[in-house]
Amino acid sequence: MAPIRIAFIGLSATGRWAARAHLPYLQKSSKYQITGICNSSKETGEAAIKFYELPSSVKAYGSVQELADDADSFDLAVCAVRVDKHFDAVKPIIAKGKQCFVEWPLGKNLQEAEELQAIALKSGNPRTLVGVQARRSPVVNKVKQLIADNIIGKVLSVTIRGAAGMSGAVEEEELGRLLNDKKIGASVFSIHFGHMIDFVLYALGQDVKSLNATVSTQRPTSQLKLADGSLEEVKRETPDHVLLQGKLANGALIDAALRGGPAFKDTPGFVWNIYGEKGEIEVSAPGVVLNVGFGPAVSVKLHDHQKDTVEVVDWKVDDENEKLPIPSQNVGRLYEAFAEGKKQEYADWEEAVERHRLLEKMVENTTKA
Amino acid sequence: MAPIRIAFIGLSATGRWAARAHLPYLQKSSKYQITGICNSSKETGEAAIKFYELPSSVKAYGSVQELADDADSFDLAVCAVRVDKHFDAVKPIIAKGKQCFVEWPLGKNLQEAEELQAIALKSGNPRTLVGVQARRSPVVNKVKQLIADNIIGKVLSVTIRGAAGMSGAVEEEELGRLLNDKKIGASVFSIHFGHMIDFVLYALGQDVKSLNATVSTQRPTSQLKLADGSLEEVKRETPDHVLLQGKLANGALIDAALRGGPAFKDTPGFVWNIYGEKGEIEVSAPGVVLNVGFGPAVSVKLHDHQKDTVEVVDWKVDDENEKLPIPSQNVGRLYEAFAEGKKQEYADWEEAVERHRLLEKMVENTTKA
Repeated sequence: MAPIRIAFIGLSATGRWAARAHLPYLQKSSKYQITGICNSSKETGEAAIKFYELPSSVKAYGSVQELADDADSFDLAVCAVRVDKHFDAVKPIIAKGKQCFVEWPLGKNLQEAEELQAIALKSGNPRTLVGVQARRSPVVNKVKQLIADNIIGKVLSVTIRGAAGMSGAVEEEELGRLLNDKKIGASVFSIHFGHMIDFVLYALGQDVKSLNATVSTQRPTSQLKLADGSLEEVKRETPDHVLLQGKLANGALIDAALRGGPAFKDTPGFVWNIYGEKGEIEVSAPGVVLNVGFGPAVSVKLHDHQKDTVEVVDWKVDDENEKLPIPSQNVGRLYEAFAEGKKQEYADWEEAVERHRLLEKMVENTTKA
Repeated sequence: MAPIRIAFIGLSATGRWAARAHLPYLQKSSKYQITGICNSSKETGEAAIKFYELPSSVKAYGSVQELADDADSFDLAVCAVRVDKHFDAVKPIIAKGKQCFVEWPLGKNLQEAEELQAIALKSGNPRTLVGVQARRSPVVNKVKQLIADNIIGKVLSVTIRGAAGMSGAVEEEELGRLLNDKKIGASVFSIHFGHMIDFVLYALGQDVKSLNATVSTQRPTSQLKLADGSLEEVKRETPDHVLLQGKLANGALIDAALRGGPAFKDTPGFVWNIYGEKGEIEVSAPGVVLNVGFGPAVSVKLHDHQKDTVEVVDWKVDDENEKLPIPSQNVGRLYEAFAEGKKQEYADWEEAVERHRLLEKMVENTTKA
């Protein structure tokens, strides 16, 4: 089968996430082939092609309109630009009915996500993909399997406690400017909590039926560490605390507390307990981003109530993606699932809109409280 | 100074809590003297006097009315009967304007607690005491002091995860019959969560300003282990899961999840994090009942964000009560505070009513959700 031709929006020579998470898989895969790079200018596209030693046949585009106009030259557009630029980057592409992979969050708010999905439906309903790659995390899938296999019986409640690391008192300049600015749509709420609630619900196989929430900025200012070593006080306009309390469709309770700032030193930054009729699963990790992963530092344990024993669950897989750098492993598995058409293994834009709705509902609920 | 004369309601030869938690202190203290025992019959009162080798001068009463009619013979009534019997046991005593110490919960519901407090106010407003003895826990007081001393700066959020141990799938017969029956008013919600929220708010020096809550029975049946080793399935009418999410008066967020059943094996049954602007306190213990205490198994740690160090906080005290059996230590300290008139160190019935109101509000909130 001919490889899926990718037009990559946002892979620059100075790029971070695209280069670290997408490129290692794409450079090895026989299922995909980068055939185009679309950056803010043709020159930066050409620079990226050269920098990453991509074949000279790869085309550089200076605008998404230019790319959209050349729609026959690719099968799948991949968008990894900053979240507030997703909408404009993707709109002309999806309007052409092209397949499209966009990083999470799909839009900088619910409205953008809904509009993108509406355009997709009108334009021939092409296959879409949103980058909640924890759905392909071996940890998450092991937990999902334990639950589906009824190992702990009916799930009665789920509790989660996490520290995002970022969005504490002092921040790296670039990250602070990105996450504190409300206009951008990136925060520990939209990104960290968004990824987290997606993989939690995916593993449980459940939706949230009713909820109370608190989405709050408890540190309304933070200190940016500038290049010269000095500190700059800036406003934080985005949430650094997120509390969710609700009932899942199957009647289980969920209580999730995620906050910015460091975890209590020498304790896991993420603890996820699933308490069932017959036992309990405890996942602990250095941080909440199981979507990216932490390699072997993640622990999955199973407490069997009747035997009163604890078993360390082996969640490791031995696939080709395991040989990639950590940030690319789950992203690579997402690409695999998409190539193989395994819809139940990845989320499309319809599901992305559902997740956006959940976050929006949490904010609305907070306003009323 | 002459010792405070105690009429004890509910100290029987077969008694548990009264004998374990009250008696060891009272038998050693020069500040108190048991002068009367009121049980369901004069005979069981006399049996208790004999069993505990109390002086022959101690009077036995067969009813609280009899005791109330002899009100000049005591200074303080102490009530340690089952919660659903508090109201009837205490009403004739408080109506006489006598000082009264009642175990938590004050009533089997808010209405009873309010009525008792109203009678107290009408009857000369005597000094009252409710048995939330964690207010005298050295752990709780160390945490209270760290916060008051601004060691972690302004408190931004509080998260609590606890497992009550009891009210899981299988239960001791006596405890199961006590905690599962709605009419009695005893459950992991009223008792475990009630004590817990009291000491958390006491340590923080804050009240709950707004809240969302979920008070739920996730296991509607449980298995009682009978004396012959067989199991009896019984209905659980009381909550085994309690989630509280709210804002404290000072703006800090609180998220507390307490459930019945065992803690995840080999992990603390209670973890309480207080996250501040400059650092974080983490209290961990085998279980949630810091009111009773666990001796040296309780850990208080302090994470200083700027230094990025963790300090183990020494919370131990070296008082006379430390030599008592664990269940009597904090109860003894409560008696001391009451004898010394240190109102800020114990809770009276007015405060007990406030706590009852908080629990009631949580239940109301759940019904609407």
